[in-house]
Amino acid sequence: MRAFTTALPALDMFPIAQWSRQTAKHWRGKRDVVLGYGDATGYPPLRRAIAAHLRATHGIACDDGQIFIVNGAQQAFHLIGSVLLQPGDKVWFENPGAIGARNALLAARAELVPLPVDRDGLVVAHGQRVAPDFRMAFVTPSHQQPLGVTMSLTRRFQLLAAAEAAGAWIIEDDYDGEFHYGGHPQPALKSVDRAERVLYVGTFSKTLFPALRLGYFLAPASLVDTFEAVFRSYLPGMPSNPQAIVAGFMDEGHFATHLRRMRRTYMERHRVLIEASRRHLSGLLDVEEADTGLHTIGHLRADLPEAEVTRRAEHRKVTVAPIQRFCLTPVLLNALVLGFSGIKPAEIEAGAATLARLLEDMASEPGRLAEGGAWCRLTTSWSAPARPARRSPVG
Amino acid sequence: MRAFTTALPALDMFPIAQWSRQTAKHWRGKRDVVLGYGDATGYPPLRRAIAAHLRATHGIACDDGQIFIVNGAQQAFHLIGSVLLQPGDKVWFENPGAIGARNALLAARAELVPLPVDRDGLVVAHGQRVAPDFRMAFVTPSHQQPLGVTMSLTRRFQLLAAAEAAGAWIIEDDYDGEFHYGGHPQPALKSVDRAERVLYVGTFSKTLFPALRLGYFLAPASLVDTFEAVFRSYLPGMPSNPQAIVAGFMDEGHFATHLRRMRRTYMERHRVLIEASRRHLSGLLDVEEADTGLHTIGHLRADLPEAEVTRRAEHRKVTVAPIQRFCLTPVLLNALVLGFSGIKPAEIEAGAATLARLLEDMASEPGRLAEGGAWCRLTTSWSAPARPARRSPVG
Repeated sequence: MRAFTTALPALDMFPIAQWSRQTAKHWRGKRDVVLGYGDATGYPPLRRAIAAHLRATHGIACDDGQIFIVNGAQQAFHLIGSVLLQPGDKVWFENPGAIGARNALLAARAELVPLPVDRDGLVVAHGQRVAPDFRMAFVTPSHQQPLGVTMSLTRRFQLLAAAEAAGAWIIEDDYDGEFHYGGHPQPALKSVDRAERVLYVGTFSKTLFPALRLGYFLAPASLVDTFEAVFRSYLPGMPSNPQAIVAGFMDEGHFATHLRRMRRTYMERHRVLIEASRRHLSGLLDVEEADTGLHTIGHLRADLPEAEVTRRAEHRKVTVAPIQRFCLTPVLLNALVLGFSGIKPAEIEAGAATLARLLEDMASEPGRLAEGGAWCRLTTSWSAPARPARRSPVG
Repeated sequence: MRAFTTALPALDMFPIAQWSRQTAKHWRGKRDVVLGYGDATGYPPLRRAIAAHLRATHGIACDDGQIFIVNGAQQAFHLIGSVLLQPGDKVWFENPGAIGARNALLAARAELVPLPVDRDGLVVAHGQRVAPDFRMAFVTPSHQQPLGVTMSLTRRFQLLAAAEAAGAWIIEDDYDGEFHYGGHPQPALKSVDRAERVLYVGTFSKTLFPALRLGYFLAPASLVDTFEAVFRSYLPGMPSNPQAIVAGFMDEGHFATHLRRMRRTYMERHRVLIEASRRHLSGLLDVEEADTGLHTIGHLRADLPEAEVTRRAEHRKVTVAPIQRFCLTPVLLNALVLGFSGIKPAEIEAGAATLARLLEDMASEPGRLAEGGAWCRLTTSWSAPARPARRSPVG
């Protein structure tokens, strides 16, 4: 896999032999169970295994009837948006934010309200100012997509209170929250959701592998009947065979083992990226250290514009993503998203060296604006830009 | 499986050992292909295999770029409805008709216009009278769901012409069209669709097994870009592992072999049902012979109402479905839908005997209206009931 492709687990480390054994075992099971129609809301043992996992490792009090199995997180966003929103309803959305969620919610006819993100996460106060009548908020609290910040506890309580006051729902996308390098995952926003406004969305694309196309969401108790009716009336449910195999994998403890192993792998790959960037990229690309997740970001010097770097890196077979790709409205950042989880250490090293050569070549090109040491880093504490003073009316 | 559960393939005859071998072979494949993100529109070799199958056995000229893989036929109906209809658009719908499609289209905010069905299929002329401004028609031409009639060629051309004139789309649901007991499947409506108005929907739930949750639709060339954009923007695609296993099963000829074997099995089970019903049910339930599909219908004598029979049969562990369950507006029928494909011959035999005892018990109950020989059979040629003459205004 090419450096620095994002959102990929370490496919090179996946225990395929073990998975094949689990699969073969499944197919030796009872014929009617293995072949017949499953439950539209999800394979019951998988719903139980997920609920147990969320209780044990994310501090989320829930039962399996609240878990709905979907075809990946993006289907969850689209479904939640379609069911809970009326066309044109306002949705607070992180800017920059998750591309898939943006498309899924737009397809559900939501009106997205871009809100800034600073070192504490979503700037809730700004949302209350520009769209107090919001019906939903979409957030990635454990590892902001794409900036990588963790939402502070203050902001979490602010957001929960705002949602409760407005009667709005919150979608918590925990796309890579299993991979906190401190050891245990961060407690989820959902774990402190006393007013029951949060729908928690998880995926197996990152924890197992993307081809599975298996995700889930946890609905507040008050919405369980609604979603059950929706599933039973027009959603046929996911294939039960992969669901059963995942459930077996979880019940027998292989999932927990695999997560621990992947956490060590990603911590190591993250370290390789940080060290390589210090060695090769110093003064050109300032790569942030992450304590969670599968990617981090690197800030570019202002004379090296992210779009041009992305394009030219692609020619040298290095894949990066510019921050603006994740934006609903432009932000004052000049940065790249760099995935490390799916990339072997030697390729991370080689990718950093290639990127360094490219940036040096660019920096030394004649005619380039020599802005030298200028950077636009993520603001520690965002505040609205001062409005230009109102002109007095003329005439 | 309980007599006379509908819509089930013969799970007892499915070649699980062969399927497991195909599965194990898949998991020995290239790691990145087996684990990585697939194409949202479908696994390319499966799209190719389906297109080849439709060309070879259904007379449909198409290429694999027109095939979109979905999570069962119901997702196809919902997706097609959501993408091609505006809320409130009129959709011609067979009455009685397919329950899943009804729910999926209603969820897409369509306004369903119930149209009668006679021995020739959908009464197109009535649609042109009551809703000439239709935007879509939903039909099951090869084996009407649930009545089992095959749409006549005249009606097919009438429907195509009406859709072309109105600029409407047609959904052709070929849910059990592979099982024509004359040998080859009937040519699809799609095969004579010169104006390119038909979206053909197929499923593997009946031809392989329901747990797969795998279906597909064939879009006219003019809609390919639209659906590609939809899939790429917010539909994450089906799991690629089952898709790859099905593709292998088709490419190696196992699918064609399995279909031939199932056709013989279902023909035999159909014969058992017809013979058992003649032996046990004569004068009570008149079971129609089918030449296609997985179920047939039986007409009840008028003094044995379908809803009551259904309820009381359930107590005796026999499952039947009353026609009214499939209706948007009531129809003049008193009949049961009887599945035979998924039921072993001995259980078909026993189910017919149990049903006969129940109907005899009911017929001999004191107080029952003794309408004796009255029946409401499917009309050969439907015509609108005469309107009551308008009263002259009073006063």
